[in-house]
Amino acid sequence: MPNIDQYIEANAARFEEELCEFLRIPSVSADPALRDDMQRAAEWVADQFRRLKLTPEIIPTAGHPMVYAETPVVAGAPTALVYGHYDVQPSDPLEKWTTPPFEPTRRDGNIVARGATDDKGQLLTHLKGLEAWMNVEGRLPINLKFIIEGEEEVGSHGLEKFIVEHSDKLACDCVVISDGSQFAPGVPAVTYGLRGIAYYELHVIGPNRDLHSGSFGGSVTNPANALAGILNGLIDKDGRVTIPGFYDDVVPLSDRERKEMAALPFDEKEFFAQIGVDGAIGEAGYTVLERRWTRPTFDVCGIWGGYQGEGAKTVLPSRAAAKFSFRLVPNQDPAEVSVGLKTRLAELCPPGVKTELIDLHGAPGVLVPLDSPYIEAAARAIEHAFGRRPVFTREGGSIPIVTTFHQQLGADALLIGWGQDDDNTHSPNEKFSLADFHRGIKASAKLWEELSK
Amino acid sequence: MPNIDQYIEANAARFEEELCEFLRIPSVSADPALRDDMQRAAEWVADQFRRLKLTPEIIPTAGHPMVYAETPVVAGAPTALVYGHYDVQPSDPLEKWTTPPFEPTRRDGNIVARGATDDKGQLLTHLKGLEAWMNVEGRLPINLKFIIEGEEEVGSHGLEKFIVEHSDKLACDCVVISDGSQFAPGVPAVTYGLRGIAYYELHVIGPNRDLHSGSFGGSVTNPANALAGILNGLIDKDGRVTIPGFYDDVVPLSDRERKEMAALPFDEKEFFAQIGVDGAIGEAGYTVLERRWTRPTFDVCGIWGGYQGEGAKTVLPSRAAAKFSFRLVPNQDPAEVSVGLKTRLAELCPPGVKTELIDLHGAPGVLVPLDSPYIEAAARAIEHAFGRRPVFTREGGSIPIVTTFHQQLGADALLIGWGQDDDNTHSPNEKFSLADFHRGIKASAKLWEELSK
Repeated sequence: MPNIDQYIEANAARFEEELCEFLRIPSVSADPALRDDMQRAAEWVADQFRRLKLTPEIIPTAGHPMVYAETPVVAGAPTALVYGHYDVQPSDPLEKWTTPPFEPTRRDGNIVARGATDDKGQLLTHLKGLEAWMNVEGRLPINLKFIIEGEEEVGSHGLEKFIVEHSDKLACDCVVISDGSQFAPGVPAVTYGLRGIAYYELHVIGPNRDLHSGSFGGSVTNPANALAGILNGLIDKDGRVTIPGFYDDVVPLSDRERKEMAALPFDEKEFFAQIGVDGAIGEAGYTVLERRWTRPTFDVCGIWGGYQGEGAKTVLPSRAAAKFSFRLVPNQDPAEVSVGLKTRLAELCPPGVKTELIDLHGAPGVLVPLDSPYIEAAARAIEHAFGRRPVFTREGGSIPIVTTFHQQLGADALLIGWGQDDDNTHSPNEKFSLADFHRGIKASAKLWEELSK
Repeated sequence: MPNIDQYIEANAARFEEELCEFLRIPSVSADPALRDDMQRAAEWVADQFRRLKLTPEIIPTAGHPMVYAETPVVAGAPTALVYGHYDVQPSDPLEKWTTPPFEPTRRDGNIVARGATDDKGQLLTHLKGLEAWMNVEGRLPINLKFIIEGEEEVGSHGLEKFIVEHSDKLACDCVVISDGSQFAPGVPAVTYGLRGIAYYELHVIGPNRDLHSGSFGGSVTNPANALAGILNGLIDKDGRVTIPGFYDDVVPLSDRERKEMAALPFDEKEFFAQIGVDGAIGEAGYTVLERRWTRPTFDVCGIWGGYQGEGAKTVLPSRAAAKFSFRLVPNQDPAEVSVGLKTRLAELCPPGVKTELIDLHGAPGVLVPLDSPYIEAAARAIEHAFGRRPVFTREGGSIPIVTTFHQQLGADALLIGWGQDDDNTHSPNEKFSLADFHRGIKASAKLWEELSK
């Protein structure tokens, strides 16, 4: 790769100028007044492909357009789909920005602007990795498809629909996404797993009206008491979910994964201090990080019932409710969780109240096996550019578009974020390290070579 | 008592006319526009005493005035304090009244008007019982004090203060209150026990901000999960409160009480059907009625935390809270419950969250021993007037003014209500049985004789 790396180094200043040009377009997808700027940003992306003699398509949606492009076919080589988004978060509160959000400014080795890390800067690394190949070699060693949307910050509705309806067009072996963070400064990461989710709303329904807690207390099943009992009964004393069969399909952590995770520079004390607590309970037998990334959970997200105002009201509420989610790990099926949950609720529901369960949404977890060749290719590419082998991490949350890619295309996702946790994503003074911008370009270019092996 | 009973019968029609006169005064304590009518109602009550050559006092308060009167001293005889209230509930929704609320109307043997049963009609029975004695015998066989307030429907603030500051003036052996119901039509009752209360608000405080349930779930103690566990842990599987020492001071039910209660015409199925449930859980070893009246309880009155809106929000709430009460039974001390609760909460609170307990209010239960001579006197008086011996009941709720009388005066309370459960107290078309009105007068007059024995 000497020629390609040289090209990238030689053009570094221009790449930064182009990044600034891209960042100057206030492509806030949530702001209807900026519709023209959204179109302008899509055109700017399309132009990047046109300059390389590719033929991008600007695909309209009910919201903002997507940009799609493919490189010339390389028979027998794998196909990677690069995903990114050109839309950005709103910039308010404006007064908290040190420099205007759409006037990119260099500061302390970073570029500061709305969209710097999320996702214009990171997306651009892949466009520039592509450029390096096309301008140096005149061709790529693999097949690349690009899908760049303008609605990530407002729900990706157009793209979700497009993936379902055009899975042939997007067919690929793996999806490459740089829209996140490294593990820590100087510690690049490949994220190989995401948790899924099964989210419910539960109503516990008792007497036909609120009752006086004095006149009736003791003679009536209290729905709020019952709700507390039911929620508490969904977890056992070891922090394990009590739904029958819940753990049957859970892929156990491999020794390698536990080892990789244990080696990460993660300080539990610092983690707890940052969120203002002095410890935590959780599933027995797992570290904090393992519980956070790789184990299913049960969390009450909301709870309500009875009197919430000032002072004392002696009411026995006629009903109480909660919203809660199970975070699922790869191989758990949300539909099976729903079945098991109903069985468990029937066991937990005491006489005198009824339960009503609303299934709000479910999505399975995503896992790329650590020994996948794509993971290894990404690791080598990152090591080449960043000077150290990446760590392998998982994420506790789910990324809906990744789940959709996984479900609709059957493709493994390579989540290789170039950002940092303190990049102020969605906050004032968003930033992106220029050194990481350039390393990201180098890693992207190298990735196409590594994937071709 | 032949002469007195004859007087009562002979004057029945006039008593009803006077009741109507009293009911025509719209003495709604909650309505500032009716201040003059409140004064007028107090004067009307005072006049009742003046006609009997007594010297009532109209005692001003920060709100509406009270009327106080005493009968001439009968040395060596006991003293009873009669409590009642001349204020009434607001009459809205007005359109649901068949006849105007302040135009008393006879219908189906009842008088229909706001205040008919609560409490003007019931209060008047004691004024007329007094009149019968004074006009027939010229004297009473015991000492009577009357305290009639005008703020019962708005919190009794003036009277509560007055009892504390003038406990000498109100000193008595027993307090007589008719401001409630019989057990059932044709089944008069003496209520000899009320439960107390200890009411709290509990906050469970976790991380310093709401967290993403995906990124953090499993690695952080969820305050809403913890709250469910804590609330559930305050009750064991037999429905008993788990606070240390909670049952130490509970007066056990006597065989006689259990027998009296079992003999009551109480249909569990009908009770459950009325509140729309098909059964209930509760403390093991007690009937529904025993649990309702005589056993302490734990009831969540309100609960809240996290996201309560539409749809799914994947939040791990930073805090959650509940309001709850323990209904206490006689001899339990709310202050001791608070101490035990704090101990128990410390046991139940998991690592990673803290609890904050707010003690909102406490009041002990009230119990007049079933073998008290006052109870027996009331039973005989009621049997004389109603033609059947009363049943002995307790109430699950507390009546703050009764607790205050009990605490400040050390006096037993005789709760002898002449109303019925379907009298529409606080609702449109409030009513009071005229037959019970006349029986109540007879019972009141007889009570003064029985108490003198």
